[in-house]
Amino acid sequence: MDQGAYLAALQKYCPYADIRVWQDVVETNWQAEYALVWKPENELFQHQQSLVAVFNLGAGIDALEKLKDLPQDVPLYKLREAGMGQWMLEYVLYGLIHFGRHFDRYHRHQTAGRWEPKNTRSLREKRIGILGLGPLGQYVANSLHDMGYNIAGWSRSLKNDLPFPQSTGLESLNGFLAQSHFLVNLLPATDETFHILNADRLMRLPRDAVVISCGRGSIFDEHALLLQLQTHHLRGALLDVFEHEPLPIEHPFWKQDNIIVTPHIAAPTQADDAIKQVLADILDIELGGDQLY
Amino acid sequence: MDQGAYLAALQKYCPYADIRVWQDVVETNWQAEYALVWKPENELFQHQQSLVAVFNLGAGIDALEKLKDLPQDVPLYKLREAGMGQWMLEYVLYGLIHFGRHFDRYHRHQTAGRWEPKNTRSLREKRIGILGLGPLGQYVANSLHDMGYNIAGWSRSLKNDLPFPQSTGLESLNGFLAQSHFLVNLLPATDETFHILNADRLMRLPRDAVVISCGRGSIFDEHALLLQLQTHHLRGALLDVFEHEPLPIEHPFWKQDNIIVTPHIAAPTQADDAIKQVLADILDIELGGDQLY
Repeated sequence: MDQGAYLAALQKYCPYADIRVWQDVVETNWQAEYALVWKPENELFQHQQSLVAVFNLGAGIDALEKLKDLPQDVPLYKLREAGMGQWMLEYVLYGLIHFGRHFDRYHRHQTAGRWEPKNTRSLREKRIGILGLGPLGQYVANSLHDMGYNIAGWSRSLKNDLPFPQSTGLESLNGFLAQSHFLVNLLPATDETFHILNADRLMRLPRDAVVISCGRGSIFDEHALLLQLQTHHLRGALLDVFEHEPLPIEHPFWKQDNIIVTPHIAAPTQADDAIKQVLADILDIELGGDQLY
Repeated sequence: MDQGAYLAALQKYCPYADIRVWQDVVETNWQAEYALVWKPENELFQHQQSLVAVFNLGAGIDALEKLKDLPQDVPLYKLREAGMGQWMLEYVLYGLIHFGRHFDRYHRHQTAGRWEPKNTRSLREKRIGILGLGPLGQYVANSLHDMGYNIAGWSRSLKNDLPFPQSTGLESLNGFLAQSHFLVNLLPATDETFHILNADRLMRLPRDAVVISCGRGSIFDEHALLLQLQTHHLRGALLDVFEHEPLPIEHPFWKQDNIIVTPHIAAPTQADDAIKQVLADILDIELGGDQLY
């Protein structure tokens, strides 16, 4: 989180606002109307009496919600797409193409100097299941659908106006998994999603399925996921998020040759786009919320 | 080349045609009106007197044009996009994302168990130069442009109605190269393109540029390309086509760690789509060519 980039964007788009960094706020007991935060210390909220809204500078609010002094009566806004969608789409495309177009196989062949072209089916014939249809999940799913890929989505609650099939609720999850050649995790970390992909559910994925995980790592029982990859029930995994980050150096994921590990870089918050969304939301609040629409 | 797939598609879409495989044609001296070929032997054309058109089942006609008995007065058709565009797009996207989103760096970090997220600029800020604006080059360039990327094209002759900047002719090539953070080779193999990317021209690419080669391998002076990669003037290369295929086992490309070698798999001909295009062209010829339009 590059504080300077956010301050610069705020000053650019909102030059007349009174903007303070949190260290000054705590020391001076200054009262803010709007708090823009990312993984803040609980201390920040202990003496704030004038907050109108809290903005989380990311899509995932799991860390923020755990703070004991987060005011319960102040609305909490999170980043929606805010420029992160294209980054997430690129990350997911990388996993689809890497495994779907057999770059994993050709990488092994390259180390052996082997020239062995293999006929493969079009990636468009594979079924891509998107777990989680929040703003980022919808961005990725809609974009892949527009590119001609075969998409299905799963989320807790029904979303309107999606151009691809969706299933809803835990009772439909096993059937959804059984249909997914590629499973893309874009779920948030909540009590309900904790280890939602346990050993039993992972077994429902078809043989040779591929997992792309870029929502939150707590979705998976990591031990079960590893076992499915070691036994080659799953072909491979592209993992950006983990139960414990940074991923501990002794974690077996690092050395598993059909896992690609990246250090939570799939969709970094874009300061400029994020601040534009925050300011649009503040304007909305100041003008009386949804009366505008 | 899977002969069976082409025969099946021909029989499906054109059940009343008299279809023969070339071995029978040569042995029986059967006279064909239309020849559908891929890297044929010269012998095929020695005794054909009734050919109306020859269809090359691929985009590149370099092998075909070298045959001494290829009839000079019979029109030669090549595959245009014919379903290969999406495959080529995926291949190019893989190279863009692999290097542009630093998967090369994270792969090295993974082998060392290092968690080091790095701030990077959006891929949309990089300039992607497409060399070659035939049907496949245009498909790839238009698709990447539609996805929001910064595209420029270069080709021998000016193409109409492209939504991105293009430069034309050898005199503009150095300037085009100097602007390309990613250089995508989709040029055909002709006398004019042979070693068009020689040592001097490759030097014009900006430092840390990336090469993606999926047209024909004869475009590059491979020795010069290797040197630019060994010295890290270029960041990396994704190479599907080579001057000699299969790439000889002793070729240094195999072991160069910033080169990804694939065995000419970027855009395999799609039998079904190819036959549909051929039959549409034949119908066109039978109905009197461009009188229809």
